Amino acid sequence: MDTPPASTTHPADSLLAAVERVGSPVCVGIDPVLERLPDACQVEGEPLPAIERFCRGVIEAVAPHVGVCKYQSACFERYGAGGVALLESLVVHARETGLEVILDAKRGDIGVSARHYAAAVPVAARWVTVNAYLGTDGIEPFLERGGAFALARTSNPGGDALQRLRLEDGRSIAEAVADLLAETGDEHLGDSGYSALGAVVGATKRADAELLRARMPRQIFLVPGYGAQGGGVDDVLPCFNADGRGALITASRSVIYAFDGDASSVWTDAVARAAESLAAELSQGLGRG
Amino acid sequence: MDTPPASTTHPADSLLAAVERVGSPVCVGIDPVLERLPDACQVEGEPLPAIERFCRGVIEAVAPHVGVCKYQSACFERYGAGGVALLESLVVHARETGLEVILDAKRGDIGVSARHYAAAVPVAARWVTVNAYLGTDGIEPFLERGGAFALARTSNPGGDALQRLRLEDGRSIAEAVADLLAETGDEHLGDSGYSALGAVVGATKRADAELLRARMPRQIFLVPGYGAQGGGVDDVLPCFNADGRGALITASRSVIYAFDGDASSVWTDAVARAAESLAAELSQGLGRG
Repeated sequence: MDTPPASTTHPADSLLAAVERVGSPVCVGIDPVLERLPDACQVEGEPLPAIERFCRGVIEAVAPHVGVCKYQSACFERYGAGGVALLESLVVHARETGLEVILDAKRGDIGVSARHYAAAVPVAARWVTVNAYLGTDGIEPFLERGGAFALARTSNPGGDALQRLRLEDGRSIAEAVADLLAETGDEHLGDSGYSALGAVVGATKRADAELLRARMPRQIFLVPGYGAQGGGVDDVLPCFNADGRGALITASRSVIYAFDGDASSVWTDAVARAAESLAAELSQGLGRG
Repeated sequence: MDTPPASTTHPADSLLAAVERVGSPVCVGIDPVLERLPDACQVEGEPLPAIERFCRGVIEAVAPHVGVCKYQSACFERYGAGGVALLESLVVHARETGLEVILDAKRGDIGVSARHYAAAVPVAARWVTVNAYLGTDGIEPFLERGGAFALARTSNPGGDALQRLRLEDGRSIAEAVADLLAETGDEHLGDSGYSALGAVVGATKRADAELLRARMPRQIFLVPGYGAQGGGVDDVLPCFNADGRGALITASRSVIYAFDGDASSVWTDAVARAAESLAAELSQGLGRG
């Protein structure tokens, strides 16, 4: 396995290098829910040891095929201090296994509080997701420590209620957020030409993705929800730039629970196959396969 | 001291009862920063024991004068699992001391993740702050456990960049958020006529507060930043309804660091006096004094 890039590398360069290393812009989303873990991980009703076994197993299974993983902070925070401690150790584990780590925490605050949240993100997670509703002074503290993906367009039904509203100048609210991110992000470019400030753009809105890509040429898009609504590679192509770079496609349940209904395999084998097949699908769709 | 309302009370009714009990709509914001704690609290470079001493001291000092406190989650999360464990115990302590507790966490996610975040809020904190950018499906899970204040208008400079933008129908983005909150909140009204879904409305925008109050008659406003920019009671009056109810005015640094530059007092006495004086100022400004 290649050595992970040194932490002095610009976060965008480091993330794109991780994609290049495996030849596919895939990110595995890890949001463990106790009830769905395989029997092999269960520990007599103790949630945290079971979640730890599961997450370590997933990371080791997917590491040969993907360059990036994303931990959903909520799944750990719900167990209080013990969950937070486990998350910290799992982020380190994923990083030591050679993966770039995104902490999906969607934090959003200002001033001292924003700096505290930035300080709370484990160092091994080079990237974190944030909310832009409070403006860029809520985002800057995160850029001082690494990379940040700010929510621009989300794929949930309720997201439309606000993000699709049209401003008097013709832009949607999501497009106004995009312009804000593009402007702020340009002050944080790496050698790759991409910014340490990326954008979360839901995979279910193909037309939106085209518009947002045009407004944010130097943002890496973090695209959640791949496969969840039955979409395919064609739906996420507009998230990439013409050179085939600039987006990271995240799949969670379709990979980490791939053992469901497959009683004939060791569960980690099923997870590894799902990650490999997803990586190949995306790499072929982008004309790299 | 009165017994805290039973937890089966509707969160809005319970919060308004806490305000009635002390006769003033004041909330003390607790966002401890190690460097600013009084010498009496410092514990040989150990941050968490010092923060614990400080927070317990503040709560006991202000409890006779205020009905509500707000803990800033970021200040604790920055210390990782230990900080989270301390926060949990401090929330319980404040509740046992008779205060209603708001957890200022500004969470915002959807689906299972939103439910996890809701589950992560300590039970003793009846209220939590949330972000509405993802729409109301990110807020509903919090209303299943208690009350939630969603960010409508923030007082930081960067907040203007997005929140003041004008939609094609003439509303600002903050007003569009307000309409969303009013509509969703109407499904969660208590006997008081107020909703379990409240709104965060920054104290520095008097004209905004008037417009937002008109759009959200049944939302309790959580108003941060009182005193921080030198504003007074007049500036926050538009946050209240005509009956003098419906807003909670939060002051943080002006109360919890009131001992600064007052070497002649025990620090908790200075904090108690600041809380008492703030409560009296607001109560007089509202014509109750």
